[in-house]
Amino acid sequence: MAKHPSLKRSTLGMINIDPLQRGGILTPEARDALVEWGDGYSICDFCPGKLEEIKKPPIHDFIYGDLPAFLGCDHARVTNGAREGIFAVMHALSGDGRGGSVVLDGNAHYTSFVAAERTGLDVSLVPVSDQPYYRVDPAGYADVLEERLNSGVRVVLAVLTYPDGNYGNIVDAGKVASICHEYEVPLLLNCAYSVGRMPVSAKEIGADAIVGSGHKSMAACGPVGVLGINEPYAGKVLRTSVHRKNKEIELLGCTARGATIMTLIASFPRVLERVKEWDKEVKNARWFSKEMEKLGMIQMGDVPHNHDLIFFEAPVLYEISKRAKKGRFFLYKELKKRKIHGIKSGLTKYFKLSTYGLPEDDLKYVVDSFEEIISTAV
Amino acid sequence: MAKHPSLKRSTLGMINIDPLQRGGILTPEARDALVEWGDGYSICDFCPGKLEEIKKPPIHDFIYGDLPAFLGCDHARVTNGAREGIFAVMHALSGDGRGGSVVLDGNAHYTSFVAAERTGLDVSLVPVSDQPYYRVDPAGYADVLEERLNSGVRVVLAVLTYPDGNYGNIVDAGKVASICHEYEVPLLLNCAYSVGRMPVSAKEIGADAIVGSGHKSMAACGPVGVLGINEPYAGKVLRTSVHRKNKEIELLGCTARGATIMTLIASFPRVLERVKEWDKEVKNARWFSKEMEKLGMIQMGDVPHNHDLIFFEAPVLYEISKRAKKGRFFLYKELKKRKIHGIKSGLTKYFKLSTYGLPEDDLKYVVDSFEEIISTAV
Repeated sequence: MAKHPSLKRSTLGMINIDPLQRGGILTPEARDALVEWGDGYSICDFCPGKLEEIKKPPIHDFIYGDLPAFLGCDHARVTNGAREGIFAVMHALSGDGRGGSVVLDGNAHYTSFVAAERTGLDVSLVPVSDQPYYRVDPAGYADVLEERLNSGVRVVLAVLTYPDGNYGNIVDAGKVASICHEYEVPLLLNCAYSVGRMPVSAKEIGADAIVGSGHKSMAACGPVGVLGINEPYAGKVLRTSVHRKNKEIELLGCTARGATIMTLIASFPRVLERVKEWDKEVKNARWFSKEMEKLGMIQMGDVPHNHDLIFFEAPVLYEISKRAKKGRFFLYKELKKRKIHGIKSGLTKYFKLSTYGLPEDDLKYVVDSFEEIISTAV
Repeated sequence: MAKHPSLKRSTLGMINIDPLQRGGILTPEARDALVEWGDGYSICDFCPGKLEEIKKPPIHDFIYGDLPAFLGCDHARVTNGAREGIFAVMHALSGDGRGGSVVLDGNAHYTSFVAAERTGLDVSLVPVSDQPYYRVDPAGYADVLEERLNSGVRVVLAVLTYPDGNYGNIVDAGKVASICHEYEVPLLLNCAYSVGRMPVSAKEIGADAIVGSGHKSMAACGPVGVLGINEPYAGKVLRTSVHRKNKEIELLGCTARGATIMTLIASFPRVLERVKEWDKEVKNARWFSKEMEKLGMIQMGDVPHNHDLIFFEAPVLYEISKRAKKGRFFLYKELKKRKIHGIKSGLTKYFKLSTYGLPEDDLKYVVDSFEEIISTAV
């Protein structure tokens, strides 16, 4: 490595339509908090022995008050991210080494698979319908649970990715919750793309646990996440150590011990406001989708769409790529010229993007850019 | 929570002698990186599918090149902190649910206990000598391993806290490593207070794994840590998922996915330089300790001391507290008046502090402040 490598972020100042990035852009308050609390273990200046008990800064009030209310849960914690929350729940509910299975929706994020594997659990999948909708039917949970339980398999947990990270599909989570409870299997919602963007209440849905992502959807600096737990599962997930009575085992004592949690807290009042604007976000996403379809692209997933994360098949761009000078990299380069980032370099036939939080002018600019790229090439 | 709670850090601008804080103060380069990469998932703009493979910013070069060289390891990874690294190693080496034991030094940090418990492992302790030295004798590892193995216990791992977080004692780690290898038990060094402060090489010591803390000792924004692994253990610790072939199970795919890793990388060139100044730091710590003893305090732990983390018994301050107006809070308040922070509020008889990285003038100012507090009260 060079002595002081250049660490500039070349995408700053561009319109970033990467679904990973749209919900994590810091608010001005989070930007201030980041600088104020940037030093290592800054939040521990007045720690009385446990992250959740820190009153200055107001971590205690956030974790014991605002956060569980926001998630619709009996208890909440801040984690190092959604995946760390998923693992904590699976690990806690499985009990070490007893084996068993988790039931995941077929659109589940890879981290649900890896968390299950780390816990020593097999994975059973609820099927997904074919192209173009890639839908998960809640009834599929009944089929899989029925089969698994009849085979004598111990099912530790069911997970629904709400929405999934490829198509932005919103499954009827309430129905899934009812089915899981019929079979007495707890349900965890992976809300990395919803908590902080749209209103979600675990209790209203009937979910037993919920995870969200600070860096993906709550305008926080990564990595940081949130975890909500409803009774009767809190005792297992938040059990404390025999060695240190005030330390929760699945959190290894303390989790987001630095500026990451402070940015989460700093952005929180604005996050509370922005989830109320969700209808507008869906409207914008639908408008954008329709405009892209006019240009010859086909939107996959739920139609009409219910989320800002949108997956397109783009035969028109694929055709251009076959004869473009830069081949399949032409789209990335043409967008880059126009200061648009977020569709992976090399993709033309299939790609996903997000419209979240973009002003209408920017959305129009993105559509106009696609139109220009297509019409210039044709 | 108030709509926009005040999130100022009241200790900024003070001399902070909390051992947790001294090694985590950001460098100017890290401060720039923090702002540049503050947004959520910023580092993932050009991700090819795995944290370690990101070339822009230069995470790939850091994790595959600079970091393992720095740690003296065959392989290295960035984690969410030292404790997360400890758990990953214990969990990987234990294999799910087979049970067994870990051997910890009696001065081990609580997170080693909690990580063992989360893994489902019993803890056996190498004893610590009495006050005032609190020393761990390397031969104690032989005694404990001998007893455990003769009892038919499966010992998964030995851990040495190097140094411990209470007394700053430096055990002869090379001897501990030799003993562990005689018994064919791998050794993990918990270097949260050493890697980034003093030169440490796992290979020179003969350790099989090593963890460090970015926020405690590498001038990085928390939470972030480093993990080094030597053969033949890398295959287990870094094993990949059957579901996603490029994702490492114990890391849940990707770990420090945000500004935390960027501050670690940004500070790294200066960290390389500062570990070379370790002799000066030890000299300063010893000078400080001697001055405090002149004032009637007694330094616990290794004498002469070999680390900046120093534990004192202070009968002189305890006596004052009995008759001081503010009782046991007088010391905290008197130090606060003098813009010194880091000794926990309410402590007078026993406390720890760190001299790490403080200019000699500041150290002298701290000593003079104690002298003034004592002489004014007497």
